[in-house]
Amino acid sequence: MIPAFTCPIALASQSPRRIELLHKIGLEFTVHPAGIPEPPPSPGQNPLTYALEMARIKARKVANDLPDHLVIGADTVVVAGDQILGKPATDVLAREMLNLLSDCWHSVSTAYVMIKKDQQFEFAGQQTTRVHFRAISASEIEYYISTGSPFDKAGGYGIQDYSAIFVDAIDGCFYNVVGLPLSHLVGSLKIVSERLSSA
Amino acid sequence: MIPAFTCPIALASQSPRRIELLHKIGLEFTVHPAGIPEPPPSPGQNPLTYALEMARIKARKVANDLPDHLVIGADTVVVAGDQILGKPATDVLAREMLNLLSDCWHSVSTAYVMIKKDQQFEFAGQQTTRVHFRAISASEIEYYISTGSPFDKAGGYGIQDYSAIFVDAIDGCFYNVVGLPLSHLVGSLKIVSERLSSA
Repeated sequence: MIPAFTCPIALASQSPRRIELLHKIGLEFTVHPAGIPEPPPSPGQNPLTYALEMARIKARKVANDLPDHLVIGADTVVVAGDQILGKPATDVLAREMLNLLSDCWHSVSTAYVMIKKDQQFEFAGQQTTRVHFRAISASEIEYYISTGSPFDKAGGYGIQDYSAIFVDAIDGCFYNVVGLPLSHLVGSLKIVSERLSSA
Repeated sequence: MIPAFTCPIALASQSPRRIELLHKIGLEFTVHPAGIPEPPPSPGQNPLTYALEMARIKARKVANDLPDHLVIGADTVVVAGDQILGKPATDVLAREMLNLLSDCWHSVSTAYVMIKKDQQFEFAGQQTTRVHFRAISASEIEYYISTGSPFDKAGGYGIQDYSAIFVDAIDGCFYNVVGLPLSHLVGSLKIVSERLSSA
């Protein structure tokens, strides 16, 4: 069960997937997108460090406006080889990414940061999941691009949509790939609830 | 992309999860539940053999009524240790199953059988996924049972619902645990489409 919180909870993200996942576990929260530009990672930057930094920046931005809320920020990075794949801006980039993922394993890491500013409280967690795509054909890639789905998603795909048929195996938490590692997040929420009420 | 079929397709299952999964991949089909009793496995029967047999029985039953359709039957079994876990009929059984799954790996196998009777065509496939539950507490189990979700699901849980927070890792295809291994199924549909049109 989701622990009880005496303070309101805010999600610093407007991702429909994250909103749906938190509804699934019965958490009550309001949505406050951080609305900040997401700078690309520096060359050679560790993907997890980058995701944690982005999650923290988002959470801090919203916590400044809502210091009495527990603010949850999150960021998901998709890594193929040593390349961090962002959200593809164009058909060409989406095609490139999906071709890169075809017939290979890649990894998806989600970092989350929870902040309650008026108690100077900060908590971070992260999970990594390995995902395998079967060999996908050019026509499958073109069809998937035509659905418009790749463009708002890191790595150019959403495991919960049509591209589900590209994924033949995962190793780790599935919901982490969707946008939040639900099982681990609930564990973290319990710790956070205890720490906040004993503070 | 889903291959083209010149014949109509029927799903011999009324599982809302399977219906939703097939909609996700864009398959057009009608729903024709087999409506047959599901006998429990014989003692010592191999779980995969049992799932394949059940999927075949369901598909054959509907194919008898719809010989010109490609009929898809499926069955999912959940196995913990050497025990096949069915759908729990009572709170007591659901509690027992969820306690058994807590803090352990178990496996979920889905078998599917496709039949087009007027061409004497039959095709079978299956996938197995390993699933790990974190340690879950008695109060989490009671809450989950109170949602009513365990009772129509093999193993007493549905990975796509609230029990998502019990699952901290999977090894294999996620959608296989929901009820159909989408990626593999699409591969099978391609083979079936080619064989049917060349027959």
